[in-house]
Amino acid sequence: MAASLSQKNDARETQQAAARQKQDEALLDAQFELVEAGRNAVLVVIAGSDGAGKGAVANRLYDRLDAHYVETMYYGTPSEEERNRPPFWRYWRDMPARGRIGLVLGGWHHAPLLARATGEISRIEFERQLAEINRFEEMLTAEGVRLLKIWLAADEKKARKRLAALREEDGALRRPVVIEWEDVDTKKERRRLVEAGLEMARTSVGAAPWLVVPADDAEARDAAVAEALVELLQRVNSEPPAEKPAAAAAANKPGKARRGPRLDLSLKADPTTYADELDDLQDRLTEVTTARRFRKSGLVLVFEGVDAAGKGGAIRRVRAALDPRQFRVHGTSAPTDEERARPYLWRFWRNIPRRGDVGIFDRSWYGRVLVERVEGFAAEPDWRRAYDEIVDFERQVAQADYAIVKFWLAISQQEQLRRFQEREANAAKRYKLTPDDWRNRDKWAAYEAAMADMVERTSTAFAPWTIVEAEDKAYARLKVLRAIVERLEASG
Amino acid sequence: MAASLSQKNDARETQQAAARQKQDEALLDAQFELVEAGRNAVLVVIAGSDGAGKGAVANRLYDRLDAHYVETMYYGTPSEEERNRPPFWRYWRDMPARGRIGLVLGGWHHAPLLARATGEISRIEFERQLAEINRFEEMLTAEGVRLLKIWLAADEKKARKRLAALREEDGALRRPVVIEWEDVDTKKERRRLVEAGLEMARTSVGAAPWLVVPADDAEARDAAVAEALVELLQRVNSEPPAEKPAAAAAANKPGKARRGPRLDLSLKADPTTYADELDDLQDRLTEVTTARRFRKSGLVLVFEGVDAAGKGGAIRRVRAALDPRQFRVHGTSAPTDEERARPYLWRFWRNIPRRGDVGIFDRSWYGRVLVERVEGFAAEPDWRRAYDEIVDFERQVAQADYAIVKFWLAISQQEQLRRFQEREANAAKRYKLTPDDWRNRDKWAAYEAAMADMVERTSTAFAPWTIVEAEDKAYARLKVLRAIVERLEASG
Repeated sequence: MAASLSQKNDARETQQAAARQKQDEALLDAQFELVEAGRNAVLVVIAGSDGAGKGAVANRLYDRLDAHYVETMYYGTPSEEERNRPPFWRYWRDMPARGRIGLVLGGWHHAPLLARATGEISRIEFERQLAEINRFEEMLTAEGVRLLKIWLAADEKKARKRLAALREEDGALRRPVVIEWEDVDTKKERRRLVEAGLEMARTSVGAAPWLVVPADDAEARDAAVAEALVELLQRVNSEPPAEKPAAAAAANKPGKARRGPRLDLSLKADPTTYADELDDLQDRLTEVTTARRFRKSGLVLVFEGVDAAGKGGAIRRVRAALDPRQFRVHGTSAPTDEERARPYLWRFWRNIPRRGDVGIFDRSWYGRVLVERVEGFAAEPDWRRAYDEIVDFERQVAQADYAIVKFWLAISQQEQLRRFQEREANAAKRYKLTPDDWRNRDKWAAYEAAMADMVERTSTAFAPWTIVEAEDKAYARLKVLRAIVERLEASG
Repeated sequence: MAASLSQKNDARETQQAAARQKQDEALLDAQFELVEAGRNAVLVVIAGSDGAGKGAVANRLYDRLDAHYVETMYYGTPSEEERNRPPFWRYWRDMPARGRIGLVLGGWHHAPLLARATGEISRIEFERQLAEINRFEEMLTAEGVRLLKIWLAADEKKARKRLAALREEDGALRRPVVIEWEDVDTKKERRRLVEAGLEMARTSVGAAPWLVVPADDAEARDAAVAEALVELLQRVNSEPPAEKPAAAAAANKPGKARRGPRLDLSLKADPTTYADELDDLQDRLTEVTTARRFRKSGLVLVFEGVDAAGKGGAIRRVRAALDPRQFRVHGTSAPTDEERARPYLWRFWRNIPRRGDVGIFDRSWYGRVLVERVEGFAAEPDWRRAYDEIVDFERQVAQADYAIVKFWLAISQQEQLRRFQEREANAAKRYKLTPDDWRNRDKWAAYEAAMADMVERTSTAFAPWTIVEAEDKAYARLKVLRAIVERLEASG
């Protein structure tokens, strides 16, 4: 009888080992295809109760995958560097490139859960944060990042025992384990944690639902997680590659042309007072950006406009009033390959200034709904969803106490031609006009329509557009400086 | 008489303005060529007395250059992020790409000067740090970074007055100014500062001498700095482009072949005790890396060896004992374009772990003296100087209390063939052998010679090589784990 039982056990173990090996191979095969295709990144979010083995699950997955293309992402108490940026900055910073798998321990979900459980944030704020998470995940999905969200559900009593045992061992934690929630101690806090955990179901949306995995049997738990990952990878690998957008898409159809806002381009600065006004505004800008309170906020400046609209000259007048240690100008040209391998907004997130600093963007994330739309570099669904994504992005930045001031510098088509000709006549080799510059002139109407849509759809209370009549350069520079100074003085 | 004086003044001012404009154009032209060529980055180090106008000089240069390709680099008290890395990490992090100009306020020179003046470091330590700076700058120069080092020399009394005036104005600093040295107050400290400043002349070496610029007349000061930059840029732009190295260079000449160390590849682990030994070593590794004192140090592991030597399997056994939040595996494949645009070691500096973490490099910076040498990807002078550069790099990391453990996994040519054939026979599509793999086998002797040189020239007391007889995988894994554990336990 004993022998027969042991034989049965042996047989079961052999079976299990064979299943595990088959799964190992399936995992590696699917990962290899993901790497080869280089189209999608995958994030495996591992969240859930403490003591349910989040660290063990990550370790086990890491073990079974090809480690060259896997990274672990873990977010504890924010570091100084992280505290000095908007909260989601750290998730963006670590975003894996296409072809790679990120194992996200706890994910962006744990911070709000913990804050809610300890009563640090209200129910309403908690729900706002969940909504933010949803939009973040939708955006990632639309950009080709695939999410597998695992919720490890442990029997609470067993989990507490396991934690206690881990803590006793030598008085130190011997084996890897994630315990962020050991602070949740009172009954009231536990109750709130359970409630908040239920609410977490609300982040189970569309393309990124939670998969609840019972965590009490380690073997079964790991097998379930691996199976889910194999399935996801196989689905991702069988997706057809996105089609290239048809060149010069919708926006160029003549029937769709919209006019921008009516502007009085005859506005001019008074040449007799210009120098004094400029000086005065620059002094005020210096004062407000060197004030102690500015160190707790930050400033993001966006300059958009057609070629030769005078963005560079305006930026120069702003810069001159700033401490050179405090700002950086970001010219937005072709993305690098590290940037192309990640969601569109990554290259802008990585350049968000620290609090107390100024980020000046000479062209910006609006490229997607301007040049990329008009020239057909982005597919129509991509630039259409960009409006909302950009508003979300700017909302996050504004909520972290940054001022955002956005400028569209407007000139007439005649003035642009005049400036182009002037450039060609001058010392010039630096200002070599490319065929692109002339071609863009042909699309004036398309750019005007794109600009009108952009201003309408992305002017928000926290990040409004300022349209600058820029036919007279002096007038434009004063208006730009005044808008920045007034914005900062008002928020002081 | 008065009229004639005023006329003279007017004439002088007109002349000055004309000279300034000519200089502006020369600056922009030269910068434009630098950008176009995309071969060199330029660092303008602006150091010198306080109150001499370092900030003003940087601001002025920034103003006159095309801001898209300029960045300001400023280093104050190290941030948390910076303190948790070797001291030079922050200079590497900000290294501008080819075609760009970095304005370095104070540079890497101010920190040792200040530390010496306040008596925080001894004269000997100060000189050691100067020598480190010299090697750093030599390496940058060899990698195509061009340095302009400006030392602003102010009349000490005037400088103190200017500082005092700046501090009084509204009680706050109104205009950009750099004052790191306001702490240097006592007579003794001032004397030491002057002495140390004289010593600084020792960093005036070879390709990167200091240019001392009198700073009392702002106009003349800015003109002198701009002139020096124009000269440097024009010299850089007229350098002939580096020649491509002749493919498969020196190392392949049969006459030069050297043998690696004699190894006993018959060494085998005892299969009856292997599992227990492995378990025991992994436990010890977990213990030592989770101990409190480990948080103040860090661990860098380097794995090198021919294809199929078993690097992945060994890394897996190490990883399994580590907390997944604590390590990252860096597979070293083709550099990204952001990496190619910077000095060779940049891609490794950016991956140096924080203190308390573990960086595992599956292939590493040794690529330059292995594959790049053998395949002729690097020119001979480049890989020859790499030995010393690597030793410098590792010395800096070791001095910041990191343990560095480096492994060469050695197998016989027969064993490699056997493993290749095994891979081809197996599930295999993941292990597709490329023509490269077979080609590399033909260069076995060349790789062996490169490896022998590498071990000889880069085995140091602080970062010795461990040669691992890897014909038996189990033996190799135990030897790797044991070397790491013993290294960490010894330093405890």
